[in-house]
Amino acid sequence: MMTSSRIEHDFLGEKEISNDCYYGVQTLRAKENFDITGIPIGSEPLFIKAFGYVKKAAALANRDLGILDPNKAEAIAYACDRLIAGEFTDQFISDLIQGGAGTSTNMNANEVIANLGLEYLGHKKGEYIYLHPNNDVNLSQSTNDSYPTAFRIAIYLKIASFSIALEELQEAFFNKGKEFDGILKMGRTQLQDAVPMTLGQEFNAFATTLGEDVMRIREASQLITEVNMGATAIGTGVNAPEGYAQLCVKYLADISEVPVTLAADLIEATYDTGALVQLSGTLKRNAIKLSKICNDLRLLSSGPRCGLNEINLPAMQPGSSIMPGKVNPVIPEVMNQTCFYVIGADLTVTMAAEAGQLQLNVMEPVIGMALFTSLQYLTKACRTLKDKCVVGITANVEHSKNLVMQSIGIVTQLNPILGYEECSSIAKEALKTGKSIYDIVVIERKLITQAKWDEIYSIENLIHPKFISH
Amino acid sequence: MMTSSRIEHDFLGEKEISNDCYYGVQTLRAKENFDITGIPIGSEPLFIKAFGYVKKAAALANRDLGILDPNKAEAIAYACDRLIAGEFTDQFISDLIQGGAGTSTNMNANEVIANLGLEYLGHKKGEYIYLHPNNDVNLSQSTNDSYPTAFRIAIYLKIASFSIALEELQEAFFNKGKEFDGILKMGRTQLQDAVPMTLGQEFNAFATTLGEDVMRIREASQLITEVNMGATAIGTGVNAPEGYAQLCVKYLADISEVPVTLAADLIEATYDTGALVQLSGTLKRNAIKLSKICNDLRLLSSGPRCGLNEINLPAMQPGSSIMPGKVNPVIPEVMNQTCFYVIGADLTVTMAAEAGQLQLNVMEPVIGMALFTSLQYLTKACRTLKDKCVVGITANVEHSKNLVMQSIGIVTQLNPILGYEECSSIAKEALKTGKSIYDIVVIERKLITQAKWDEIYSIENLIHPKFISH
Amino acid sequence: MMTSSRIEHDFLGEKEISNDCYYGVQTLRAKENFDITGIPIGSEPLFIKAFGYVKKAAALANRDLGILDPNKAEAIAYACDRLIAGEFTDQFISDLIQGGAGTSTNMNANEVIANLGLEYLGHKKGEYIYLHPNNDVNLSQSTNDSYPTAFRIAIYLKIASFSIALEELQEAFFNKGKEFDGILKMGRTQLQDAVPMTLGQEFNAFATTLGEDVMRIREASQLITEVNMGATAIGTGVNAPEGYAQLCVKYLADISEVPVTLAADLIEATYDTGALVQLSGTLKRNAIKLSKICNDLRLLSSGPRCGLNEINLPAMQPGSSIMPGKVNPVIPEVMNQTCFYVIGADLTVTMAAEAGQLQLNVMEPVIGMALFTSLQYLTKACRTLKDKCVVGITANVEHSKNLVMQSIGIVTQLNPILGYEECSSIAKEALKTGKSIYDIVVIERKLITQAKWDEIYSIENLIHPKFISH
Amino acid sequence: MMTSSRIEHDFLGEKEISNDCYYGVQTLRAKENFDITGIPIGSEPLFIKAFGYVKKAAALANRDLGILDPNKAEAIAYACDRLIAGEFTDQFISDLIQGGAGTSTNMNANEVIANLGLEYLGHKKGEYIYLHPNNDVNLSQSTNDSYPTAFRIAIYLKIASFSIALEELQEAFFNKGKEFDGILKMGRTQLQDAVPMTLGQEFNAFATTLGEDVMRIREASQLITEVNMGATAIGTGVNAPEGYAQLCVKYLADISEVPVTLAADLIEATYDTGALVQLSGTLKRNAIKLSKICNDLRLLSSGPRCGLNEINLPAMQPGSSIMPGKVNPVIPEVMNQTCFYVIGADLTVTMAAEAGQLQLNVMEPVIGMALFTSLQYLTKACRTLKDKCVVGITANVEHSKNLVMQSIGIVTQLNPILGYEECSSIAKEALKTGKSIYDIVVIERKLITQAKWDEIYSIENLIHPKFISH
Repeated sequence: MMTSSRIEHDFLGEKEISNDCYYGVQTLRAKENFDITGIPIGSEPLFIKAFGYVKKAAALANRDLGILDPNKAEAIAYACDRLIAGEFTDQFISDLIQGGAGTSTNMNANEVIANLGLEYLGHKKGEYIYLHPNNDVNLSQSTNDSYPTAFRIAIYLKIASFSIALEELQEAFFNKGKEFDGILKMGRTQLQDAVPMTLGQEFNAFATTLGEDVMRIREASQLITEVNMGATAIGTGVNAPEGYAQLCVKYLADISEVPVTLAADLIEATYDTGALVQLSGTLKRNAIKLSKICNDLRLLSSGPRCGLNEINLPAMQPGSSIMPGKVNPVIPEVMNQTCFYVIGADLTVTMAAEAGQLQLNVMEPVIGMALFTSLQYLTKACRTLKDKCVVGITANVEHSKNLVMQSIGIVTQLNPILGYEECSSIAKEALKTGKSIYDIVVIERKLITQAKWDEIYSIENLIHPKFISH
Repeated sequence: MMTSSRIEHDFLGEKEISNDCYYGVQTLRAKENFDITGIPIGSEPLFIKAFGYVKKAAALANRDLGILDPNKAEAIAYACDRLIAGEFTDQFISDLIQGGAGTSTNMNANEVIANLGLEYLGHKKGEYIYLHPNNDVNLSQSTNDSYPTAFRIAIYLKIASFSIALEELQEAFFNKGKEFDGILKMGRTQLQDAVPMTLGQEFNAFATTLGEDVMRIREASQLITEVNMGATAIGTGVNAPEGYAQLCVKYLADISEVPVTLAADLIEATYDTGALVQLSGTLKRNAIKLSKICNDLRLLSSGPRCGLNEINLPAMQPGSSIMPGKVNPVIPEVMNQTCFYVIGADLTVTMAAEAGQLQLNVMEPVIGMALFTSLQYLTKACRTLKDKCVVGITANVEHSKNLVMQSIGIVTQLNPILGYEECSSIAKEALKTGKSIYDIVVIERKLITQAKWDEIYSIENLIHPKFISH
Repeated sequence: MMTSSRIEHDFLGEKEISNDCYYGVQTLRAKENFDITGIPIGSEPLFIKAFGYVKKAAALANRDLGILDPNKAEAIAYACDRLIAGEFTDQFISDLIQGGAGTSTNMNANEVIANLGLEYLGHKKGEYIYLHPNNDVNLSQSTNDSYPTAFRIAIYLKIASFSIALEELQEAFFNKGKEFDGILKMGRTQLQDAVPMTLGQEFNAFATTLGEDVMRIREASQLITEVNMGATAIGTGVNAPEGYAQLCVKYLADISEVPVTLAADLIEATYDTGALVQLSGTLKRNAIKLSKICNDLRLLSSGPRCGLNEINLPAMQPGSSIMPGKVNPVIPEVMNQTCFYVIGADLTVTMAAEAGQLQLNVMEPVIGMALFTSLQYLTKACRTLKDKCVVGITANVEHSKNLVMQSIGIVTQLNPILGYEECSSIAKEALKTGKSIYDIVVIERKLITQAKWDEIYSIENLIHPKFISH
Repeated sequence: MMTSSRIEHDFLGEKEISNDCYYGVQTLRAKENFDITGIPIGSEPLFIKAFGYVKKAAALANRDLGILDPNKAEAIAYACDRLIAGEFTDQFISDLIQGGAGTSTNMNANEVIANLGLEYLGHKKGEYIYLHPNNDVNLSQSTNDSYPTAFRIAIYLKIASFSIALEELQEAFFNKGKEFDGILKMGRTQLQDAVPMTLGQEFNAFATTLGEDVMRIREASQLITEVNMGATAIGTGVNAPEGYAQLCVKYLADISEVPVTLAADLIEATYDTGALVQLSGTLKRNAIKLSKICNDLRLLSSGPRCGLNEINLPAMQPGSSIMPGKVNPVIPEVMNQTCFYVIGADLTVTMAAEAGQLQLNVMEPVIGMALFTSLQYLTKACRTLKDKCVVGITANVEHSKNLVMQSIGIVTQLNPILGYEECSSIAKEALKTGKSIYDIVVIERKLITQAKWDEIYSIENLIHPKFISH
């Protein structure tokens, strides 16, 4: 029921397309062929923007090298600028998971740009004789260089947002670390009482560990900036003029402000997904750490009466449809689940990367889906964890301190004075009888004086232990 | 900019809600708390339908046991029927990934049902004094029994669709197997030429292997039907009247026509995700097989001139933005990628299942996300593979036969007559000189007669080899 | 420095072999070619035994069908019996990870059997003219049927041991469940205090969940019994006489007492690894559950003073080189790690299964390595967990009960009487003030009488909650 | 049946130990407690060596700081030197997978060193009053700093060997790339014929891609060098004197020649496994690439008559027990399987890393097992692939060239002259009729002259394509 339409044709025949549509016949075929996730590539605006950068850079390079008419180049640049501005994402209808190594996505871009350019030149959509998706927009290119290049730029831009969210989360933990500076609490190894520390140290360590990830992610994002424009079909540069690759990448860096560089070995760069695997592995690493942190937050806030109960997470919603007053650690829980998603997505990337064959890895679209969603979900989950949990955490100061002083673990401090074996015997008695270390050591066995005890077990020394022997 | 609104409150305070909304305060909190995937639970209509079944069954059981006013029960049943009919999915706005073990989803259902029921009873939304989301709709229930029960029913229903798609794919391979019955071709092991077979056998084996999966998936779906209604919070059945569990499950089976049964150990059933892990593992198994089949289809159709080229896949779209006439195996490729997604999702399920603690597995929502999407994508991919690829595959009969007759592998047939060592020597010479087995065996070495050769190497004997010795 | 040696040759040339060795030239090549793990296949005695079964069954079938000299068959049967008796495992020197789809393992078996048979017949090792590894021992067979068949039989036998270990562990939990029958404790969901239960219920649920796995593993082991003897190279049965497949499998079932059956589609059965994937997935499922159980044991025994401390695990070794008296949950910890190994091994199986191509899956050896080690480690870990942990667990009865009575979670029991909202308000006050539910409900707000309280909060009713309303 | 024995005791009681043994009571308990893999830690000699480094550095630092008697320090240093020299690995009998976060391994080292030191001092084994495993050898240490430090040093040393093996493999590919420089062959994308390239480019790209991994692995190994000596139990440094951490790490760097540095945040460093996850992820990346390369080698050598057959792999062993003359790509196959092992092991690392809790990750031993075996197997597999495959690969020059000239893909070169659509029509006709591109373009349609054809399709231009338009 199209009000107005045109007929387009390709290698396989003709198709009718509504004149509302900027995409063309190949995009329509892709839409029909790939109905898997129902999620269109236009749902990743940065990916469309990145195609704007790539196609514009190619057009300008082709123009400079004299193989593209300047008017055509101007029309392509105009169309690309509109994509870069965030427009027309609804015209990108190919499914996120698609066969064909991204050809459908690349042709979707070529067709939308051609038709936008045609209108700019005063022609009608579909009059490709004046501006052709393949001959002009895709000139000196193949899917196999323009698609992975646009993909990497989109990923680079998404990493930028994610890094910020992760750094802000790191900072929130760091601030909590300072806030909880002097709060004595029990350290635990293997879930068993160990020796004292401060809650500040615990939260500061969360900041430290995430800070390391920020660096790793930055390194991974640098590897992403190596691109293969000019490789064309398989890296030999067939059908691209001399000097094109260098010029195109220069334009691309200028236009996108992404520090892209040209790969030294274009054959390898055309099929290799190593940088994507590295990035995915780094996101997995980060997911592992975030999950561990959330496990800790849930442990430390367990209770309120039958758990550790050292900290309180902000109450975000009633925790139960049946248990009144129950408040659950829902925000760490949602982060845990996001992390499990990311770890699963890394396996998808692994399988897809291993499936590359000969001169291409045709599975790059599903790698894209995995990385786009992982970055998106992690970014949101980091913001959620910071805003709705970390910044509002409070400490149960007295309870934490009491746990320490009642513990057996503090006998460790007496090792340098009494030796490991005597201390073991004290610990054994405490465990058996329920007595405190103080009672056994100072009152009963009179192994050290009250003064020595006070020196060793001052809050100051428990927090910043000095080596105290006889 | 709400035209009309109401104030609702919970444990944590008050919130304003538009009167357009059937959901209430707890749903709104969930919406604010969990912004991760942007995909609402309403995107899984079968999940909403399943909540309709569960809440209706609970209401009828509560009514029969005399703890729910019959009018309230009628109102709840009315509301549930509308959900079962597929209405109001837009009111289910909680994110697919959420903290809280599904409490938000369960409360979303409780609130929507309460407000629909209130209208049915002639009251206004939010007048929970007449029909309360917790006290009435959730009566004798907890998130921890109603959520996993609804989830399992939804999964069961999704498996039903998937099984059909898989069986239809199996049948398509089976039909191709019959169509390709007499077509001689080279069998290959380790990508090296082995001994002859038919293309029919190859395609029939694809049907066989998928047929086994249909059975495994059915077995897995049976395990899913064990539910824990009546367990309430942790499986002790606190706050559920005697007989409720049995009655509720009976109603549930009747209403949903899903053969649900009550778990024998409700404590275990409340936290265990074993049946979900089993299902996910079975989907992974199926993904492995589908991926292997698609790898084979891509290998067999490789070429057209520099590959195996034994079969032709239907051309679905131009294969390259630069290489004219190139047609790629895009449909198998999209299946491969779907399979990699499913295998990754199985790892998400693995991590989430392992993270269960004590009386509950709080990570069930991300298990849901993984299974819902895996089933959805696989169903679509199976239909795509059948319709757009398998049914249209054609064979290159002459080329396949020629490959066989030129091969060295056919020397194997002479083992029983000439022995392994003589045959090895023949093979070695053929490999070195490029000669055919026929030339060496019959013409040069005169090891067997022409008549014997014709007997052994008739098409009939190559396809259905008889044991032929001297 | 061989005291005495012989020269053997194959397709590729000659090699000197010590006369101490029953294996021959092809085994020696395999040894040189594959130096990866350093673990020889002889380290899996059941695998060698299974080859004894397979080769003997084939020899008897070949004899009956008149294509193998009865004396040769007798010699082969003699040699196989010695392998079945567990002898000569040191002659199986191929690496567990090997290329060639198991050809090296199969030839290792063929060569050892041939040389043992030669001695039986009064010949010297290497005089293959009298009994040939390929022509006689491997008669009517290929690696591609005898290897996967022997492998499946070995796995079946290993599963038998594992099932017993798992059942004994299940029984130990079941017995503890009975022992801890009346011990009241807090149930926890999301690590937050929920409602009361008994420690007996908790341990009984561990037994329930493992009992389900015993059934799943049995089902998986049934799938393993489908074999493809008679398929020879690719499933067409080339070079095997009519009736051989059925007869060989009948002999195999008789000799091995494993209920093997012949696959209906030998083409499919020759490449398919579905049953192995299913088994691996089931082991993964079991690993997930065992890991979850061990996580729970570690949580419940956390402390002793700053954790939950509801149970005591047997002290197995000093827990720290620095902290005197510290005892760690080392046995659950070693199970957790074993489970992580098994889950990783399942991914190895997944990758290897997906890599099958056309008529064979050449990656079966690494699947074997993964399954052999997973079964071995899990069997030992189950025994360790039972003997060194579960049977010695004791309960801290008073402490557990005190936690319950101090908890806020017990307010849930008042829902049917006071309604969800009133109970929420009580819970909120308790949380804020530190007061007990009893104080607020009975003393301050006088919402129920002391008698009602006593009825609801009797140990009996906490353990087996009745539905108590007004 | 001990000829002579001593009685040792610990916290839990007494045990009899043979006087042959340098280990003591705690090691014996560990041996009894952990019987999972049967593989002792002594099977990793670099791990034992690394403990020698760590314990010696600690002793020297303790001596300098005045808390360890110089004679004792000398005895410890002597014992450590013997471990560093590779002696006494048979005394390290704890299982690779063990509970207790490595306490058993650390105590095994402490006990062996103590007893060696005792003999050096003229005492008998077990006379710990003169040199105590805990009080002296473990002085200023905990398992939680000395174990992860020794582990990281061992891993660092293993990476060094692996890097060399990988670089040598890279170089072998690079040399083949030069050797195959002018050999024309078809490039393939998606297994479909694409455009021409050289075999040299293909092999050179393998070198390029592995070269990138060498860099990534070096980066990962740098992260491993951050250690936490001085952290003691949980990172607070309890029981270590001031200045110890810095001094110990300085000694450690000097003695081991590994560039270890002290972590800035010892709390974080004590539980964090991020650097191990990063390394494992990098090994996984490498495994993905090696597997892809081996898949390619197997594809390119497929045939010999019914496959691509562009290259020949060295024949390493007869390929079949039934098919004479069959030679299989067994070396790439064994690498594929090694890679699948490594990818599985990375999941083990992932699970174990995520399971860290609070101040420690108790799962480090299984991380160790995964990394030790992955590095070991990959190192051997790289050497195997180089020596037994890559260096002996030969090219089928004529066949490869013929494939190119018969292909349809070479029509791509005509795009700049004839346009994408005309070229598509030519390709379509070629596909349909079986004609060559030459026949259609030059003879039939006369679209370009013979001279132009010769210019475009010269070997030189096919290999190094120039942009040729009208």
